[in-house]
Amino acid sequence: MLDDAIREFLAAHRDEHLARLAECIRFPSVSAQSVHQGDCLACARWLAEQLARAGLTAEVDESPGKPVVLAAGEQKPDRPTLLVYGHYDVQPAEPMELWDSPPFEPTERGGDLVGRGTSDDKGPLLTWLDAAEAYHNVAGGPPVNLKFLVEGEEELGSPTLADYIRRNAERLRCDYAAISDTAFHADGVPSITYGLRGLMYVEVTLSGPGRDLHSGLYGGVAVNPISALATLLAGLHDENGRVMIPGFYDAVEPITPAEHAAWEPLAFDEAELKADLGTDALAGEPRYTPLERLWARPALDVNGIWGGYTGEGPKTVIPARASAKLSARLVCNQRPEAVIAALDEYLRSHCPPGTRVEMKVLSSENPWLIRPDSPALAAAQAAMAEAFEADCALIRCGASVPVTSQIQAHLGVDALMMGYALPDDRVHSPNEKFRIDHFHRGALASASLMSRLAGL
Amino acid sequence: MLDDAIREFLAAHRDEHLARLAECIRFPSVSAQSVHQGDCLACARWLAEQLARAGLTAEVDESPGKPVVLAAGEQKPDRPTLLVYGHYDVQPAEPMELWDSPPFEPTERGGDLVGRGTSDDKGPLLTWLDAAEAYHNVAGGPPVNLKFLVEGEEELGSPTLADYIRRNAERLRCDYAAISDTAFHADGVPSITYGLRGLMYVEVTLSGPGRDLHSGLYGGVAVNPISALATLLAGLHDENGRVMIPGFYDAVEPITPAEHAAWEPLAFDEAELKADLGTDALAGEPRYTPLERLWARPALDVNGIWGGYTGEGPKTVIPARASAKLSARLVCNQRPEAVIAALDEYLRSHCPPGTRVEMKVLSSENPWLIRPDSPALAAAQAAMAEAFEADCALIRCGASVPVTSQIQAHLGVDALMMGYALPDDRVHSPNEKFRIDHFHRGALASASLMSRLAGL
Repeated sequence: MLDDAIREFLAAHRDEHLARLAECIRFPSVSAQSVHQGDCLACARWLAEQLARAGLTAEVDESPGKPVVLAAGEQKPDRPTLLVYGHYDVQPAEPMELWDSPPFEPTERGGDLVGRGTSDDKGPLLTWLDAAEAYHNVAGGPPVNLKFLVEGEEELGSPTLADYIRRNAERLRCDYAAISDTAFHADGVPSITYGLRGLMYVEVTLSGPGRDLHSGLYGGVAVNPISALATLLAGLHDENGRVMIPGFYDAVEPITPAEHAAWEPLAFDEAELKADLGTDALAGEPRYTPLERLWARPALDVNGIWGGYTGEGPKTVIPARASAKLSARLVCNQRPEAVIAALDEYLRSHCPPGTRVEMKVLSSENPWLIRPDSPALAAAQAAMAEAFEADCALIRCGASVPVTSQIQAHLGVDALMMGYALPDDRVHSPNEKFRIDHFHRGALASASLMSRLAGL
Repeated sequence: MLDDAIREFLAAHRDEHLARLAECIRFPSVSAQSVHQGDCLACARWLAEQLARAGLTAEVDESPGKPVVLAAGEQKPDRPTLLVYGHYDVQPAEPMELWDSPPFEPTERGGDLVGRGTSDDKGPLLTWLDAAEAYHNVAGGPPVNLKFLVEGEEELGSPTLADYIRRNAERLRCDYAAISDTAFHADGVPSITYGLRGLMYVEVTLSGPGRDLHSGLYGGVAVNPISALATLLAGLHDENGRVMIPGFYDAVEPITPAEHAAWEPLAFDEAELKADLGTDALAGEPRYTPLERLWARPALDVNGIWGGYTGEGPKTVIPARASAKLSARLVCNQRPEAVIAALDEYLRSHCPPGTRVEMKVLSSENPWLIRPDSPALAAAQAAMAEAFEADCALIRCGASVPVTSQIQAHLGVDALMMGYALPDDRVHSPNEKFRIDHFHRGALASASLMSRLAGL
């Protein structure tokens, strides 16, 4: 439950907090572009200063790939510790010409703050700073031992974070972790994400003839690796969208009747989904609803393909090789290593005479799922409901957020994913926005969680 | 029969002629790449200068797609006219990294000249220039009325040549036509080609979602156009290499027992063919010999494919579209238009829900076949045998040389295809080469044909 004093402090400092978010957005902290290396460091230092003003001891650690901000408030042995994770880096703003206002000059429009990073993830992250500052000013400090871990490589896939968490496990030790980097299920439906799909991502190359061949001189006797690759890829699914790799579904946990029932009210409007995707048909296993397919069923997709002549005009060639990028979204209890091995076996046993296949693993991530009935999750739901004045749904998401498994693996804690963004916030796209009301209510939710965890 | 003086002139000018070929190779006259537009024009102008030095009146006509070189020597009414056709354009050199020496910096290696266009078609074409120059210097001119037609779009499928020949039929009028753009059947077996396969070449684009999608957020419900394209391509052949497009084989003429018998001594050593292709298995219809598959059976190949993310590392995208380049080699009496229509129907009727297919025709060519028993063909065989000191075989070829049908259609002449290249000259591939001895003997054969046709 939120203290009146905290509510009043946050209400009284709204303009100040919004101005601080705008200041944060003005750092073009694009991790993918080396020209913004300095902006990333400046943003990290600015964050450390803000955290210090909220009563935490903050430092910028420049040892990993991009600087990490690490902060801790007073740590008392008789109360729980909450670790807040966020990221200050943002996606590239390109294509610039599609923005209605400059991406790094935050602009208020129709109740939204528009700018790169407003909802992913600077706005949601700063709600935790606002909450910490409120407790610091009103009560001399928060009711929990607070820690912050803010990284600058999330948009690159957090390549060094797992190692960083492992190395700093003692300093990061906590009882709970909170992450605000997801979205409401729909406008008006505050949501906590309790499951994410995992990932395995490989590059496959099929080699045929020893060199590129003239299709006139050899067409009819030379094995064509593009055709062979097409045949392998075509064989990955049956006509109902079921993945045909032997053993692929072995570890998949069935959807329980309880889940099926709980998700029914959250179902997509299929016509809207099709309109959003610009398509007149959906793919995937017909015996599951689209929501079930995205939340609790694995999926296998070809993400890229190339081979032979791809330039202008005709070139009559039978190429020596063809390649594809392939990835699978995984659900509990699939393990990327097992799926990679099954795919490898499928490719090797099906690759036709005269061809050979090579596979390179580019990325892998375990699926993440936490108990939907823990006291901490109930506290987070209650905090969201209190702040946004609506029931809080428990949802899953088809994508991966690698830090969740890293926190689970190295700190032994299930993260509470309190999403403050909206599905149409144009994350990663031009005109990214964050609803200003969500920013202020997010601070209430963040503060409420601190108070509720202290009472568990 | 070759005059001693001609033999001596050609023997005395070998170094000069080889240096001239090297000069010609240095023009990167890649017709498929618009960046090389200027190089094509420069190469055409250079050729016109060389023809003028051999006593012909030469001009560069820039009115068609790529410049055409047209030349004629003195035309006397009492002797036959020979039209020599060749092309100065070359295939793209990519992939560059597979060349052992720069493609446009000709390099001598083990008796070969290595470089893009050495054997296809600059080397063989220049033998006719060398022969004309020899007659010009030794005898004041050749024994036949000589004409040259050298185009710059052969590697694009000669899209404007038919029209050009039709419009210039009077200037190109001839009794015989000679083309050196084919190969020996095997090393030591000089050969004349009397049949060629036709061609149809299309680009197919399969569109799915209205934009590129995040594979985590949509994997399992979004139709993947790469998978759909793979399925379409995989369905083009059955497991025995037979093309599955309905009607594809309808017009194919069966191989006669006489042909079967005549080709038996020319049969490939399958082990050698596999070694040459760098493969341990051949493709295609098992009930026909590899030679029959290449000479008298049609073939369908994917020449290129692309879609989605093809750069470095992973990108979790479901792309909006995927494309492929597809071509078929056709035999008598297949017609490209009919095969294109059948393929279009196959693609449209098999493209899965949620996708749409577009097809663009890039090239099409009728198959070509002439009588194997004419006096002109016998003269050409004798010229080849004289120059290369071995019996000359009559063969077919699986590739297309569009000009043959165009000369047949618009000038009423069956071309004499005297091939000077070798089967392992890596035409269209990295490290294309031409045997230097064949370059010099080719000039003898070209000169001998002029003399023999004059005596018919």
